[in-house]
Order: sequence, then C-alpha cells, then structure tokens
Amino acid sequence: MTPEIVNMQPFFAPHSVAIVGASSVPGKSGNIIVENLVKLRFPGAVYPINPKAKKILGLRTYASLAECPETPEIAVIVVPREAVPAAIQHVGERGTKYAVIATAGFADTGDESGLALDRQIHEIATSFGIRYMGPNSIGTISTDSRFITSIVRNDPLPAGPVSLFGQTGLFASGVTHWIAQSEPFGVAKVACLGNKNDVTEIDVLNYLADDPHTGVIGCYLEGTNDGRAFFAALRRAAAVKPVIVLKGGTSSLGGIATASHTGTLAGDAAVFRGVLRQAGAIAADDWEDLFALLAGFAHGPRPAGNRLGVISITGAGCVLAADAAERYGLELPELTPHTIERVREVSPAWAPLRNPLDIWSTIERCGVADAYHKVAPVVAADPNIDMLIVATTLFDGTIFDCGPLVEEIRAAAPQKTIATVLLGGGPDENRAWTTAAHHAGAATFPSLHRAVRALSVMRKDANNPEID
Amino acid sequence: MTPEIVNMQPFFAPHSVAIVGASSVPGKSGNIIVENLVKLRFPGAVYPINPKAKKILGLRTYASLAECPETPEIAVIVVPREAVPAAIQHVGERGTKYAVIATAGFADTGDESGLALDRQIHEIATSFGIRYMGPNSIGTISTDSRFITSIVRNDPLPAGPVSLFGQTGLFASGVTHWIAQSEPFGVAKVACLGNKNDVTEIDVLNYLADDPHTGVIGCYLEGTNDGRAFFAALRRAAAVKPVIVLKGGTSSLGGIATASHTGTLAGDAAVFRGVLRQAGAIAADDWEDLFALLAGFAHGPRPAGNRLGVISITGAGCVLAADAAERYGLELPELTPHTIERVREVSPAWAPLRNPLDIWSTIERCGVADAYHKVAPVVAADPNIDMLIVATTLFDGTIFDCGPLVEEIRAAAPQKTIATVLLGGGPDENRAWTTAAHHAGAATFPSLHRAVRALSVMRKDANNPEID
Repeated sequence: MTPEIVNMQPFFAPHSVAIVGASSVPGKSGNIIVENLVKLRFPGAVYPINPKAKKILGLRTYASLAECPETPEIAVIVVPREAVPAAIQHVGERGTKYAVIATAGFADTGDESGLALDRQIHEIATSFGIRYMGPNSIGTISTDSRFITSIVRNDPLPAGPVSLFGQTGLFASGVTHWIAQSEPFGVAKVACLGNKNDVTEIDVLNYLADDPHTGVIGCYLEGTNDGRAFFAALRRAAAVKPVIVLKGGTSSLGGIATASHTGTLAGDAAVFRGVLRQAGAIAADDWEDLFALLAGFAHGPRPAGNRLGVISITGAGCVLAADAAERYGLELPELTPHTIERVREVSPAWAPLRNPLDIWSTIERCGVADAYHKVAPVVAADPNIDMLIVATTLFDGTIFDCGPLVEEIRAAAPQKTIATVLLGGGPDENRAWTTAAHHAGAATFPSLHRAVRALSVMRKDANNPEID
Repeated sequence: MTPEIVNMQPFFAPHSVAIVGASSVPGKSGNIIVENLVKLRFPGAVYPINPKAKKILGLRTYASLAECPETPEIAVIVVPREAVPAAIQHVGERGTKYAVIATAGFADTGDESGLALDRQIHEIATSFGIRYMGPNSIGTISTDSRFITSIVRNDPLPAGPVSLFGQTGLFASGVTHWIAQSEPFGVAKVACLGNKNDVTEIDVLNYLADDPHTGVIGCYLEGTNDGRAFFAALRRAAAVKPVIVLKGGTSSLGGIATASHTGTLAGDAAVFRGVLRQAGAIAADDWEDLFALLAGFAHGPRPAGNRLGVISITGAGCVLAADAAERYGLELPELTPHTIERVREVSPAWAPLRNPLDIWSTIERCGVADAYHKVAPVVAADPNIDMLIVATTLFDGTIFDCGPLVEEIRAAAPQKTIATVLLGGGPDENRAWTTAAHHAGAATFPSLHRAVRALSVMRKDANNPEID
C-alpha cells in the first residue's frame, strides 16, 4: 500500500478552524482550545460550535457547523467519545476535510467498545475523505502561524527551529509549559499524534522535512505501522535537517505498555536503532537526552571539526569536561601562544593556562563578568578549536547577564558552536541565564557530560559509536 | 605510613573560630565568611582578625590572634597567598590546632613559587601540630552546629541526611545555593577539601561514617594519596551508610586536567571502579547522576525488594518507566485484584488498569489532585510492590500541592520507597513540587529513567551490573 500524501498545512496553518464541542466553562478542554487561540492571537477565523452559548471568550458561537458562514478548513473535535461519530459526520457534511480529534477512549483503551467506535469514526471519515489526527490527540501548535489546537492551556512559545511530534500529549502541555517559561530554545511546530488512526508520524515527518520554519526535528515514537514508509520519510528528513528520535517501548515490558496506551505494537529495539542509523537520524538515550540534543541543535552552527575548548569556573568542571571529551571522542587541543598571552594579561602570573581553562584565578583578579568577557571571546577565536563550552555556577557573587557575553563570543567566532553549562545554582538565576544564552545564540546544559555529548552528536562528520 | 587519626570535629562544630584576614569590605572572601556565620546564627564565638577595623558586621574585631580572649579552636585563613606562612605561624603561636586555608595559589598552580609556599606552610603547620584543610578550600558547612567557613555567600540549608565532600569548591557554593533554593533534599555536612595537603578524603570519610547526622555520603574525588587507607575508610563507611563517589579524571585527558588543578594524580579508572565495588560503595555515572542518587538515598526507606509500581499522567511515562525498569533490572508486577477494584471505582469502565498505570482517564473524571489522592495511596499499599513512582507534568490544570499526597502515600505504605517524577513543567512549579515532596518524604527526578536508575541502586540487595 502506498500511503496517500496528506496535505498537512491545515493542521498547522489553516485559514479557519471550528471547535466542535467548544465550551463556555473555564478549564474545560472545549474552552481551553478557544482560550489558546485567543491568547496566541490566531489571525484566522475561529468558529466555536456550541448549541447554547452565544459567545465564548468574546467570540461568536455557532449552534452547528451548518451555521458557519464558510466551510471551516479544519475542525477540532472535543465532544464526549460517544458523540465523536456524529461529530465527524457533521464535519463531513459541512465539507471540512481535516480534523483533530482530541477525545480519548478508543483504541487507547484496548476494550471492545472503544475499538468499535474507532472503526465507526474511521469509516465515516473515510467516506467523506476527511484526514484526521488522533483520536486522543492533545493537539498541534505552530508559532509562525500562531495556530494551536492544544486542549491544555499554553502560553505563547518562543519561535525557533525546534519541531516536536510524537505519541505523547506531553509535547503540547508540560513540555511547552517548560519551554514557554524557561526559553531553552525556540519552537516551530508541535504535534501530538495520539492514536494515529489516520495521520501518522510519516505524514508529520514529511511535512516537517519541507517546513522552512523547522530546523531540527525531535520525536517520541513507540512504533510505526509502516516501516518502509517511515524509513523513507526518515531518510528524506534526515538528509536536510537533524532528526532526533526517542524510542519508547524498547524493552519487552515497554512494548506491553505501548500496546496498552496507543494500540500500536513497538518493534524490536535493535531493529529500530539500526533503522535510525541507516536513515541518518539520531537516537536519543532517554527523555533528558532528547531535550539536551534539541537544545544543542537549536543553536548552530554545528561544529565543523572535533576540537573542543572549555572554560570553567572550577577545576572539577575542567576534569569532568576532559572525561566526557574522551568518552565522546572530542579533542581538547592546546591553545595557541597568542591566546595564552592574551589570557595571561588578565590572569595572575602563577595561574596555569591551558585547555580546559580554569578561570577562577582570573575571576579573583577581575571579577566574574569581566573575567568571562575578557577570556571567553579570545578562546573562542583560537584557531585551534571548533567549539567552546563556557561552564559556570550561579550564586551570589557569580551572577551576571550572560546575554552580552554570548553575543561577544559569537561575534568573535561566528562560525563556531558555543554552549554554556550551569553546575548547580538557583532555579531563578538558571532560568534567567538559560533564556539570555538562548536569545544570544547558545544552548545551556546542566552538566559538562551532557554538553560534550550534545556537541559530539552535533558534529557534521559525527560517526562515533555513541550515536546510534 | 599509618596516618594519624585527625579529630575532625573542630572543622564542623568548633566552640570558637577566628577569621584570619577578616575584611570589612562587602563581597570580599574575608567578609563573606563572617557574614555567613552571622546569617546562620553560629552559636560559638567568632573572632574576626583585622588590624584596622573595629567591627565587622557588628562583631568586635581583633588586631591579631594574640589579642583574642581565648584560644580559638579553629582558624580560617583567607589572607593573600604570600601572607599565608606568617598567618599559619601566628595560628600556631596562639595555640590553635586546626585551620582551614581558603587561599589558593599553591600546588594547584603547578608553578614553583606555589609549591615552595606549600612546603613552607606545611612545615610550619607540622611544627605546631596544626591539622589543616586546604589550601584552596572553599570551606565547610554543618547544618546541625550552624557552622560555616565557606568563602561564598550561603543561605541556610535545609537540614537532612546528605553529606558532601570532595575536591571541588562547587559543593559549598553553587551546589549549596541550588539546595537552599530548591530543597531537593536536606544536608548534614559539606567539606571542600581543596589541595588536601594535610586533611584528606580519608579523614573526612572516617568522620562522616561516624557522624550521626549523616545518612548518605556523596563525594567528588579525582584521586587519593593513600589507596589502602582510602579503601579501608570507604569499606568502613559503606558498611554503615551509602557512599556515592563521582570519580573525576577517569580519562587520560581528565587525568592531566586533574594534575593541573589540585596537584594529585588520578588513578586508573578501572582500578578505581573496582575498588569502589569491593568496598561496597556506589559509582555515580556523572554529575547529574550523583545528585539524583543522593536525592534518592536521602528519602528512605530503601526498597526491600525489586518490585516497582508506576503511576503516570501519560502513557509515554508508562512506556519509558517500563523501558528503564528492564534496563535496570526492576520488576513491574501486576497489581492485586483488590487494588484494581478500588482504582476502578474512580476510573471510567473502559480505562485499562494495570502497572504501569496511566492515570489520565481518572484525572478526566475526578480532576488531577483527586485522581492522584484516590489512586496513589491504594497502589502504594498493594502488597505486590516494594516501591512506587508517581510521575506527572506541571502546567495550568495539573498543578496541586503534592505535600499532602506524599504524606498520604507514606502513611498508606510507610515501609516502601516513594519517588516522584516531573516531565517538563515550569521552573517555579517544579521547585514548589520538589520542595513539598522532599518535606513529605519523597525525592523528585527529572525523568522516569533517572528515577528507576536511582531506585534500582537503592535496593538493599542491589547487585545489578549498573552499580559498579
């Protein structure tokens, strides 16, 4: 079977959207969808469908889809599960060809009534030629078009190159909440696929591969219904942008849990990793690794070579960086005499100056902000290195705005990769640092180990054994 | 050489302390030490030594040690490095037998003038029988005695079982700042050993093994000068409480960086790991792992068996928990019919109820707080499980005070280990959750993988291959 190519644009940037099951009760999913669209200032037409309410959050409601002044390009369905077949029938009758079904309780339950409803809505949708995401989809988000179908309250996300999709509602809820609050990187698109009855990871992957706003793709997948098509989509996407895959259900136990919650069967873990490698995609080790790698790739350029420079507020950071560099196959070259000379000018005569560079004695002489400002751009510009990690820890006495620092480093070495690392430090200062570093063009990592791992994966010629 | 047993009590709970190099200039190390002692309300006598100032932060100063009305039990030396030999001479002449030397610029520099000063202060100290920590020590902290010698501004730490020591100043600066702000666990003692000219990891380990306030020991070490004595101390400590060791300088590159910043040579990585295993200690994989394991051990009891229960707000959490359980050798047993019955009472009829348990359908019916309150204590009490992970994500709609929940779970299953996991979520809510969970008796982890790893290491009969 050759799958039809789905036009995914209506799922991320429609001209108009109907909310079937819109609610005037704050906190209900059918209210939150409208609230999100209002909050994000979606520029298209929004048609809340509700037989009783006249207005929801200031928007005129319509008693039925039939009453809408135009055919909505997409419908978000958020009615109780028994009402979903009738809702999809109305969508079809109105001529709308795309839908997101947020309602849960179908194949995800594993029980017979859910499976029967599933078949019923799929038959109705197919008869009208409706392409739909879900059921059990928490929704989609697009920063460039300001479109959102999440059933969870979302604040506006920082725009950027990261697109996320997968079989988890977390991506359009807890994860976007974290991103909106901390701004570790910017986001292009988010899609929570739900049960994948119709629109699958293959459709979304093909769309994101072509999406000019998407620079790096992260996904959480538990399985695929069409291995060949998935491989083709993966290879096609990975040829033009990094694709990072966290595979859930790699264990036999995980496989059982997978079958229970989305109704698909997870493939063999080793087969899946082999497929990823052959397709040129990157396997995330775990949940934290996925987001660390995304943060890395979101802040280019990718390292042109293998040579790492490290500046650390503490000797332990230097040692841990060196350990990680050896583990992940990065070199720590000597700095040039010119670099050493310039760093010496702001450091005590007795301070040992080498890569990794312990900057503490310079801080004691110059103060923390000055020390980093005077040393980091010089080291970044050293022709012996391809990438630079700036590690520090935040407490009363070491806190400064890292935005101007990262900008100076980037100006001194625009072709190199810059990453920052925070070891400990309070949450508020960490958030401020992470956000400022992101806006100036550098990712922030919680350990040297994680930063070195990300940089090693980001190398363009990456072929070390950890990346598979 | 049999090392003398050092009386470590003056480093953590002296009756009186002199600050040699106390400063009236805010922000200077010699001022911060006094400020910390005042802020922590250290109940002993504090003698700031300063030839000019009359008072520092409200405390009477003394022009010299000779003028102190009593012999200070310990002296903290924070004068410029060329003045350290004279300072230690004065300490000896005053009859003080213990010192922390905060000043840096000795063996840590690797240069000849530093090494010469090092030898000089060691000779003077030895001639007076002074035992000292450092040089290049950021200091010590003790919550029970409210004593602190950190040269970095510290807020009061939550008291608890975790003691930290090692060759990094991070432990009494950025890390304690993080702990004071987020309260992921409580702290007993902190010691930043610095260059270990005299007091070593062996002395501190022996002391912490006997310290009634210390329930779990975490350390960062780059090497030891006496492998046999270290092994004996490690075995002795690990026999009575968990000892988690993060070894820096495991790589040949790291070994070079180690030699440069504390003047000791790192041993071979494989030898070191073998020593840890034989001694019954636990090797941390990396910086994040060290603190995750400490958070786990800080919140007992340790799991009596191998059987894990998981409750997750999302199916992905269930799948990732199952993957991690297989990787780390934990079982995910079926829940008893009694448990299933009680969970069914608050869940839709179609909801699949098994371990790991996806609680989303119950949340849709009951609301998030009620769902967790009704389900988690029941699952915790299930006789089939030894430990429980409660996973969620925080955003507008899922936020509630987890303190009462953790208390209820602990009351329902006081002999079991309880851990929480936050997937995404904003920093403020995460901090509030982490603090509340800690005070109620549960650690919080940033991923299922990390929680499962910690629980697997915490098992009393742990003998899985990851723990070595």
